[in-house]
Amino acid sequence: MAETARVSVDFRTEPARYRHWKLALDGRVATLAMDVREDGGLVPGYELKLNSYDLGVDIELYDAVQRLRFEHPEVGAVILTSAKERVFCAGANIRMLSQSTHGWKVNFCKFTNETRNGIEEASAESRQAWICAVNGPCAGGGYELALACEQIVMADDAATTVSLPEVPLLAVLPGTGGLTRLVDKRHVRRDRADFFCTLEEGIKGQRAVEWRLVDEVVPRSRLEEVVRRRAAERAARSDRPTDARGIPLPPLERTVAGDRVAYRHVTCTLDRARGIAEITVAAPESPAPAGLAALHAQGAEFWPLALARELDDLILHLRTNEEEVGLWVWKTAGNADGVEAHDRLLLDHQSDWLVREIRLYLRRVFKRLDVTSRSLFALIEPGSCFAGTLLELALACDRTYMLEGTREGDDRPAPALRLTALNLGAYPMVNGLGRLASRFLDEPARADDLKGRLGQDLDAAAALEAGLVTFAPDDIDWEDEVRIALEERAAFSPDALTGMEASLRFGGPETLESKIFARLSAWQNWIFQRPNAVGAGGALKVYGTGDRAAFDRRRV
Amino acid sequence: MAETARVSVDFRTEPARYRHWKLALDGRVATLAMDVREDGGLVPGYELKLNSYDLGVDIELYDAVQRLRFEHPEVGAVILTSAKERVFCAGANIRMLSQSTHGWKVNFCKFTNETRNGIEEASAESRQAWICAVNGPCAGGGYELALACEQIVMADDAATTVSLPEVPLLAVLPGTGGLTRLVDKRHVRRDRADFFCTLEEGIKGQRAVEWRLVDEVVPRSRLEEVVRRRAAERAARSDRPTDARGIPLPPLERTVAGDRVAYRHVTCTLDRARGIAEITVAAPESPAPAGLAALHAQGAEFWPLALARELDDLILHLRTNEEEVGLWVWKTAGNADGVEAHDRLLLDHQSDWLVREIRLYLRRVFKRLDVTSRSLFALIEPGSCFAGTLLELALACDRTYMLEGTREGDDRPAPALRLTALNLGAYPMVNGLGRLASRFLDEPARADDLKGRLGQDLDAAAALEAGLVTFAPDDIDWEDEVRIALEERAAFSPDALTGMEASLRFGGPETLESKIFARLSAWQNWIFQRPNAVGAGGALKVYGTGDRAAFDRRRV
Repeated sequence: MAETARVSVDFRTEPARYRHWKLALDGRVATLAMDVREDGGLVPGYELKLNSYDLGVDIELYDAVQRLRFEHPEVGAVILTSAKERVFCAGANIRMLSQSTHGWKVNFCKFTNETRNGIEEASAESRQAWICAVNGPCAGGGYELALACEQIVMADDAATTVSLPEVPLLAVLPGTGGLTRLVDKRHVRRDRADFFCTLEEGIKGQRAVEWRLVDEVVPRSRLEEVVRRRAAERAARSDRPTDARGIPLPPLERTVAGDRVAYRHVTCTLDRARGIAEITVAAPESPAPAGLAALHAQGAEFWPLALARELDDLILHLRTNEEEVGLWVWKTAGNADGVEAHDRLLLDHQSDWLVREIRLYLRRVFKRLDVTSRSLFALIEPGSCFAGTLLELALACDRTYMLEGTREGDDRPAPALRLTALNLGAYPMVNGLGRLASRFLDEPARADDLKGRLGQDLDAAAALEAGLVTFAPDDIDWEDEVRIALEERAAFSPDALTGMEASLRFGGPETLESKIFARLSAWQNWIFQRPNAVGAGGALKVYGTGDRAAFDRRRV
Repeated sequence: MAETARVSVDFRTEPARYRHWKLALDGRVATLAMDVREDGGLVPGYELKLNSYDLGVDIELYDAVQRLRFEHPEVGAVILTSAKERVFCAGANIRMLSQSTHGWKVNFCKFTNETRNGIEEASAESRQAWICAVNGPCAGGGYELALACEQIVMADDAATTVSLPEVPLLAVLPGTGGLTRLVDKRHVRRDRADFFCTLEEGIKGQRAVEWRLVDEVVPRSRLEEVVRRRAAERAARSDRPTDARGIPLPPLERTVAGDRVAYRHVTCTLDRARGIAEITVAAPESPAPAGLAALHAQGAEFWPLALARELDDLILHLRTNEEEVGLWVWKTAGNADGVEAHDRLLLDHQSDWLVREIRLYLRRVFKRLDVTSRSLFALIEPGSCFAGTLLELALACDRTYMLEGTREGDDRPAPALRLTALNLGAYPMVNGLGRLASRFLDEPARADDLKGRLGQDLDAAAALEAGLVTFAPDDIDWEDEVRIALEERAAFSPDALTGMEASLRFGGPETLESKIFARLSAWQNWIFQRPNAVGAGGALKVYGTGDRAAFDRRRV
């Protein structure tokens, strides 16, 4: 069990290094074909047969989704299919799940969920419509991948079925959004969903269409042709430009050494003994580009895009490789004017395809933070620049401390917060609300008042009054108050904090995404601990051995 | 651990038998005072100190809530307070939790949640406003009880605080709605909620008001007077009649013998070896009362009210005392006309206080069914009467089988379903939607079509076409198909089914209630299994021993 936990996972990759996916570009339509290498598992101990996947396979998928959006503005539709002869995808690898620690399973599911949500966002917001060509048995996580696509076209033959056999076969849930997407996205009737989810062999042909499990079935001989036509139709309706230059995403520069992880704009210092990571985000060093052309010329160097990539990688790195660091403390450094100038570009040119992608990427990164099972605190001190896009970091935190006034022996002025128009909803959370709206659930007047204060520097008293920070100790109280808060937090039960934070962060409405993270994942986490699934005689453990699982029949 | 599971719990009680509560009536205002007997625990092994509670205490609370609604139409406001000198309520008893099985804890929390939701429904729908007088320390489940009230008035003294110390003290969640009600009902800002939930000592005085944790603080000397005034104000605004006669709820007649539980209208046969309960609900035997006066005269004998009470008791009995019976199969018997006639009374007189109470009670019972962690199947056969209110049972099921046509050697006609106006939203689920709306989430046309078919007998073909049943085998297929479905269901992992059913039953919108059952409870269930809470060195186990809990620091 410990084996999987000891591997240090690097989320950075690029198409030339893909082992499990084939990306082909053909004008407005791209094809991403799953072709998992059996011997290509991320950790030893299992073979990735039948296009089953592990975290390594999903890291490449995530990379492909990202690159299609940034590097290929001309692509208006993506065909997701299998390059194997006889199978679409058998889902998450069962031996991998069976040998993994509880934490590894949960983290794996979270990442795969985020990637599938990203596929849906690409269809809806980037106008890169994902279409699934189911060209063989499509089971469990394989069907969940299909469910994340906008359209599912399936071959009408004896072998090709869609199925969610987790409950009958493995005594776990289809935990990567499958149950939720059945009833809440595809609106499969609940009793049919119930039947379908207990059917090992799945459903094929016309019944799959009638039950809304897929959109269309076509003879196998015509599958490719039909899917290409559907993709071409979708691409033709996309607003993505046909004549724009893509933005290459070069390898992200990162130094991981001892207790320090450093990128160009983001630095993280780990105090493993105390279980605390201090993350400092730097404002842009150089002035914002003069206009849209200059912004495009900067490409991946453009500060908001570089920031999104670095934060994304750091969050994934810490989640996966630093499990015992339970408290992330956020700081910023630099000039708020620079941040605001960049925000202005993201606002003024929001209809540009690249600016849209950057805003969506930042939105995804902040969402990733929201659903991260770590305590998040922000410390707002002299020299900081919690403005606009960077202010979202503080608003995503469970708690914020802002120094009231200046610090003795420190010439820098008292810290200030600054709202920009991007704080008013550009980065909605998984519940569909912006972080300010989530913060002031029944006080629209407060949000209105804040609209009148964009661009103003709010000192601690003003920020406290406006409800933007939790506490504002002065120089005398700061050290003790903050130290005690951090120490106490780091001492509480990690599990209780995870449940508490997941419950308090998302007041108000629910969406497909919030249901997946908060409801489905919580049930799955519960089941991932039950002896009926993971005990010595549990279904996940005995799968493939020929033994039958022995269940404790008590209903809980 | 096994000890708690072996107790057979009876949910039937009455004020004369209360050991833990004092109910006082004074015209329009009732006072329910908590006065828990330390030696009055439901099972041996713990003392109920400091007004802490166990299931036995909550069963009495539930009974009081019910009786106030039916037996006291004149009561427009209920004051909830403590009869102890120095404490309001210390929450769920920790030793009780610590010694209980996982299943017992989860079932206990579900029932207490339902009772608190019932208190909120009494305030909102029965116009019996619950007002909490916090007259001493109010911690954990004690504060969750306060949160269920419409108003919280707190004594402003040094000792009186509200707190949710579960996370810091016990490494579990405030799992009886506390976290959800903080942010979603009282709209406590999320960062303040975060701080509050990590604060052992709680918050008192003016800050509790500023943070919206309570509505008002008053000097202790004036607490009673102010609360009485608030209650009188509320009662004056209630539409409950001052001159009506209450409906006594006599002891429910029930026979529990071997594998049979029988009430007047409801019979349950247990097949413990197969893990299946067959529940048959009988239509009314006598004609519906001729009008409202006759209905009142029938009182607790009025079939819909008797039905609600019997179903309610049976659900609670099976949940608590028959843990290994994982599949409940619903049948009905009798004449649909009688059901429809009673439904018509519930429709025609819906503004009458008693009819309103009966409809609300049925609604709560069906909701209880929705959140029950058992598989629910309905079998619709000749002689059945799934009409109107009884049709809700089938609509609450995970799956329904309806016989197509007649049965050889059975003279009775083919079974039929019948919709009444009460199926169109009288009994919303915890997600706020009626069961038909939940069933046809994006097909309003279907629901409209059904409106045109009220009162018609729908045979299997029509019911299948209308989407009201899952399968309609004929006489030849019925036996095998149904038998295999039941056997398969009973063989799956109970835990996986629980998670699957909780995910599929509630498509569409979310409410405070659905969040509590689906999100908060799922997290709590997860945490209730984590070694950090319940392991040998877990916080729940070492509480009170002077030892410190030893935590696995890995975040999951």
